[in-house]
Amino acid sequence: MTSSLPQGVTRPSGRAPDQLREVRIERGYTRHAEGSVLVSFGDTRVLCTASVDNKVPAFLRGKGEGWVTAEYGMLPRATNTRSDREAARGKQGGRTLEIQRLIGRSLRACVDRKLLGERTITLDCDVLQADGGTRTAAITGAYVALVDAVRWLQSRKEITRDPIFGAVAAVSVGVYRGVPVLDLDYAEDSDCDTDMNVVMNDGGGFIEVQGTAEGHAFRREELQAMTALAETGIARLVDMQRAALAG
Amino acid sequence: MTSSLPQGVTRPSGRAPDQLREVRIERGYTRHAEGSVLVSFGDTRVLCTASVDNKVPAFLRGKGEGWVTAEYGMLPRATNTRSDREAARGKQGGRTLEIQRLIGRSLRACVDRKLLGERTITLDCDVLQADGGTRTAAITGAYVALVDAVRWLQSRKEITRDPIFGAVAAVSVGVYRGVPVLDLDYAEDSDCDTDMNVVMNDGGGFIEVQGTAEGHAFRREELQAMTALAETGIARLVDMQRAALAG
Amino acid sequence: MTSSLPQGVTRPSGRAPDQLREVRIERGYTRHAEGSVLVSFGDTRVLCTASVDNKVPAFLRGKGEGWVTAEYGMLPRATNTRSDREAARGKQGGRTLEIQRLIGRSLRACVDRKLLGERTITLDCDVLQADGGTRTAAITGAYVALVDAVRWLQSRKEITRDPIFGAVAAVSVGVYRGVPVLDLDYAEDSDCDTDMNVVMNDGGGFIEVQGTAEGHAFRREELQAMTALAETGIARLVDMQRAALAG
Amino acid sequence: MTSSLPQGVTRPSGRAPDQLREVRIERGYTRHAEGSVLVSFGDTRVLCTASVDNKVPAFLRGKGEGWVTAEYGMLPRATNTRSDREAARGKQGGRTLEIQRLIGRSLRACVDRKLLGERTITLDCDVLQADGGTRTAAITGAYVALVDAVRWLQSRKEITRDPIFGAVAAVSVGVYRGVPVLDLDYAEDSDCDTDMNVVMNDGGGFIEVQGTAEGHAFRREELQAMTALAETGIARLVDMQRAALAG
Amino acid sequence: MTSSLPQGVTRPSGRAPDQLREVRIERGYTRHAEGSVLVSFGDTRVLCTASVDNKVPAFLRGKGEGWVTAEYGMLPRATNTRSDREAARGKQGGRTLEIQRLIGRSLRACVDRKLLGERTITLDCDVLQADGGTRTAAITGAYVALVDAVRWLQSRKEITRDPIFGAVAAVSVGVYRGVPVLDLDYAEDSDCDTDMNVVMNDGGGFIEVQGTAEGHAFRREELQAMTALAETGIARLVDMQRAALAG
Amino acid sequence: MTSSLPQGVTRPSGRAPDQLREVRIERGYTRHAEGSVLVSFGDTRVLCTASVDNKVPAFLRGKGEGWVTAEYGMLPRATNTRSDREAARGKQGGRTLEIQRLIGRSLRACVDRKLLGERTITLDCDVLQADGGTRTAAITGAYVALVDAVRWLQSRKEITRDPIFGAVAAVSVGVYRGVPVLDLDYAEDSDCDTDMNVVMNDGGGFIEVQGTAEGHAFRREELQAMTALAETGIARLVDMQRAALAG
Repeated sequence: MTSSLPQGVTRPSGRAPDQLREVRIERGYTRHAEGSVLVSFGDTRVLCTASVDNKVPAFLRGKGEGWVTAEYGMLPRATNTRSDREAARGKQGGRTLEIQRLIGRSLRACVDRKLLGERTITLDCDVLQADGGTRTAAITGAYVALVDAVRWLQSRKEITRDPIFGAVAAVSVGVYRGVPVLDLDYAEDSDCDTDMNVVMNDGGGFIEVQGTAEGHAFRREELQAMTALAETGIARLVDMQRAALAG
Repeated sequence: MTSSLPQGVTRPSGRAPDQLREVRIERGYTRHAEGSVLVSFGDTRVLCTASVDNKVPAFLRGKGEGWVTAEYGMLPRATNTRSDREAARGKQGGRTLEIQRLIGRSLRACVDRKLLGERTITLDCDVLQADGGTRTAAITGAYVALVDAVRWLQSRKEITRDPIFGAVAAVSVGVYRGVPVLDLDYAEDSDCDTDMNVVMNDGGGFIEVQGTAEGHAFRREELQAMTALAETGIARLVDMQRAALAG
Repeated sequence: MTSSLPQGVTRPSGRAPDQLREVRIERGYTRHAEGSVLVSFGDTRVLCTASVDNKVPAFLRGKGEGWVTAEYGMLPRATNTRSDREAARGKQGGRTLEIQRLIGRSLRACVDRKLLGERTITLDCDVLQADGGTRTAAITGAYVALVDAVRWLQSRKEITRDPIFGAVAAVSVGVYRGVPVLDLDYAEDSDCDTDMNVVMNDGGGFIEVQGTAEGHAFRREELQAMTALAETGIARLVDMQRAALAG
Repeated sequence: MTSSLPQGVTRPSGRAPDQLREVRIERGYTRHAEGSVLVSFGDTRVLCTASVDNKVPAFLRGKGEGWVTAEYGMLPRATNTRSDREAARGKQGGRTLEIQRLIGRSLRACVDRKLLGERTITLDCDVLQADGGTRTAAITGAYVALVDAVRWLQSRKEITRDPIFGAVAAVSVGVYRGVPVLDLDYAEDSDCDTDMNVVMNDGGGFIEVQGTAEGHAFRREELQAMTALAETGIARLVDMQRAALAG
Repeated sequence: MTSSLPQGVTRPSGRAPDQLREVRIERGYTRHAEGSVLVSFGDTRVLCTASVDNKVPAFLRGKGEGWVTAEYGMLPRATNTRSDREAARGKQGGRTLEIQRLIGRSLRACVDRKLLGERTITLDCDVLQADGGTRTAAITGAYVALVDAVRWLQSRKEITRDPIFGAVAAVSVGVYRGVPVLDLDYAEDSDCDTDMNVVMNDGGGFIEVQGTAEGHAFRREELQAMTALAETGIARLVDMQRAALAG
Repeated sequence: MTSSLPQGVTRPSGRAPDQLREVRIERGYTRHAEGSVLVSFGDTRVLCTASVDNKVPAFLRGKGEGWVTAEYGMLPRATNTRSDREAARGKQGGRTLEIQRLIGRSLRACVDRKLLGERTITLDCDVLQADGGTRTAAITGAYVALVDAVRWLQSRKEITRDPIFGAVAAVSVGVYRGVPVLDLDYAEDSDCDTDMNVVMNDGGGFIEVQGTAEGHAFRREELQAMTALAETGIARLVDMQRAALAG
């Protein structure tokens, strides 16, 4: 599938409207974690580690179920201008909390928590370098780290049946000068009328859709075009996850 | 427009799929604020006040623009089980921050901040009683409080041209046993496969769309049916806002 | 009993020196709490809810005694000028802590904690609108919510003997231009030389007396006149509590 | 003046009902502060320092007035059982805030803030050893430190007219087995039915009266007897302050 | 042993290069703690209390070992300029945490934690007056308080064998105008090129060495001269600790 | 220079006593920062970025001097066991504060802050993977990032004269089974009797020396042997810094 911008309109990145940035998924990036993935969507680079803990939060204790959760952070100079270190400020900002809640919910959507048993897998997604789309890169990479952590549990015979069903990936879409475009980098995101983050599974089902009108409100047709574009992008990301996991 | 549930399926609330709860919008609920609205969506009751301050946040100082922001809170016993008071815990939770960011963004979408001038309008949305849909009720009520605050500014000749264009309202939609339904109460929300909050303006444009798969992922068709349902619900809410403001 | 101001002196509210504001006590104001009372002393409106929890704080565990405690909050725009939200600031101020400690102590003075058993009743007193005397209104309303919560426990046969003995109510008194006056509203409080909050039981005993010289120090005679005035006011408040509970 | 306990009743301390503990007021206890006083009420020892700063809080800036404020702290092992260090816990408790607000209000009652000019005097009251009555000892000692700080300002010709009028001192009173007693130590405080802290000036005027029923409610007669006892105790404390300042 | 400054160089304090300030160690300074020592190094005065608690931190539970830890604080006006109260600021600063970690490590170096059994001894070191060297005075005094607390445990037969082996003391050294000097006061510390804190035991072994170049980097020879000087100073401090404990 | 372990003693890493781990210094690791260096000491990897800000902290404003400061963080799963995220816990731990204070002091030792002018350079040192010696790797890498940031300032003609004099590097040394060894990895650090961090400049001067007895106290001879070993290690590190900066 291909699409094109209207005569004379060029994306700041020079990409075709439905073109992803170069995506790389490096497994085993650090050594201690049960899963450790450096995911890059162009210049956006996120280190996603999966840590297994044989405990569950208080609200799940004794229920025979596991938990999957995420934390998100941005190194102070991941961005163009240095931002305050949240640890030094003494609290995580609203944006951080919002993103880590999104990552956690998205990944829980592909886990059978009964099969996981009473253990917690924490996905730490730390942005080393930001250029737009950090949350969608984080979800896409964290899925691979999660699979690695589950494989580690299986290799040690701690669990027998695979608690993960399907795959989960995410991408952003937007409307740039009237044209729906895929996988916005920072420059494009800043210049778009609408920004939408879409999380889907490998069966084509939607897990999260979060669209925000930046400039003016968007129409039903734009919503549909953006979700269609997200579908094609996520299908390709799922293929890359599979390739990385087969590697 | 009417719709119906499949043979034998009844919403917990007994409502038709496209039926809103009883909505009430009471202006002037408290006396000190420039705008003060008690909004009820059924048993959900949110007190929305608008406060005018002749200052703007640091990042806007000297730019000749105003700011519109929101804070959200829930009284500890607004819910069935008492939750900890955020002031006592020493921080606002992620859900709170997420909601108040949503309310602020939604309302800024109908304000010309240049016309507002260098002042801030803060919308405090405090949930007195919760029964599902507190954030959509808050947005719907806060819009009315915002208009009242702007009228107050106009009545004092502090601003001449109205900085508000159009209206903003919000509603939740979901898929209950396969059927898209409008304006979920708490019992329905807990039992739905998908929960989506939609914010729109009075011109039929989307401002925010936030859909989350609770049970299993949702399909493109469900997404479209839910947004269509939201459109009809929000059109009716905008009518009620107008009626309240005319009152 | 009547009293009067010296020739030519009028209270800002126009009330007689020993006249309470209009007091209303509405039970069942919200639906989830075991006790829920909206109390109004004139324009001061406080929502008091009582929540039952089958646990006690650590220092009481295993002692066979219950606990009664209070939390106090003020909606940001309950007052004439918006005050910062304590949850957003990250801590409760000294005034808030002082008031909630006072409310808790006052209500514990009428509870046999052995009879309550190992459970905690939390009184949340949230000021929807402030016009002076919020702490005394809170105590007066919280007592009614507490009784309702205890009745709820009795109706479920969780406790058999009533742990509440007597009644507790509170009122403020002050000295306005040399004359002791009852139940100060905000305008009067700001203009008084002395402000005193008095908590009493229905047997005429004092539970708390907190007097503060605002302008100049007060004399022994003024202290006596103020406490006498408080006695008459509280007797009337206790009657209103009884009437509300009989309703 | 003497008084006595009923036949067979003895205060735990063995003192007569109207007898203060041994009071010592040592000026110049530490070297850096503009005023530094170690005050002892028996085994209660509080270090009170007065620090002068040529700034005022934001709410007073440009008004030509000064400010007097207090902070209170207790060393972790000032008490029989070690309590957590508030700095380590990350916040001051309600009791601490309540006491430091009381100390600040009490001392402001004897200061003409216009004459003080745009400067702040902070009274730090740190309890080295606690045996009941720490807040009343703190007020009594802080007054002396405040006078020393003002004298220091005068000696440097920073102010010409003395902004302090009169003196302020404080003492606790209670009802022990039916008898009003003066200046409770910890053992007596724990065993009293009523505990009252009284702050007065040297003219016999009341600045603060804070009485709390610990066991059962107290009667009007008891309130009067306690305030009368406080009057005699404070008169003696004011004499000791004068003697210390003359030293 | 004596040493001297080069012709024409005088320490600000007038002391010989290897001369300690006057050191005093007063046991039993406050009454509640199991060990309570006021230690003075000249005008630096630190109150060190030792508190015994029959619990250990979570990471040691059930291991049959005890714990020794320290907390450090400075009264706001211990210094020439008032510093903010850490409890009011809501956190302990980096310097405070660094010092209390040092004190804890230093004292654990002379304790057999198995012999101590499952209990914690907390050393609270609160600076009443600061004139340089507060951390070294704190370590030297806290050792004595620790011994007193252990003796208290032994006197109650809670432990039989003494868990303390040897003694621990500390002193600062520096290089002043090219000459190594012992036990810097504040004026000297501010004017030194190098500042080093040394903790040793009574067997001449080093427990901590922390040297910092203030002005220019220091040479190997200076490091050796400073450590030699520290050895002689600490030997004298250990003698004073012994004398105090024999008293 | 070579040295060897006693017959039959082998370092856990198999290295010779005076052998550094493989050190890599990669400049330009991320794209936004004025200096960005990934430094590796074996498996320890620290990302050091230098950020230039045209402001100074309040205590330096208007003095015509710049500031150099550091912040340190560890990704939650940089270590073998996941540690809590400091941003989520709401504060930086004592170890973090201690390390970042050390890094800042060390780098300020080679900067002429007058020549830097009124700007701040912040060195963010974030540990991606930890295997002992993170603080010494951080200092060594941060120096290179600092030089890059200064070159960036020079290339933009914002400063003319180079404010950096000399070089700063750091290494750890310890005593393993009686033998002084260089550059401890985590396994060695855990098994050493003494651990010392040394910061030096390229002229052979000491900037910081921090030695801690882990097991038993160390002797003067050991201290000298360790500092001698550090000298040789740091000389090699300074060579590598030069080579990297020449690259």
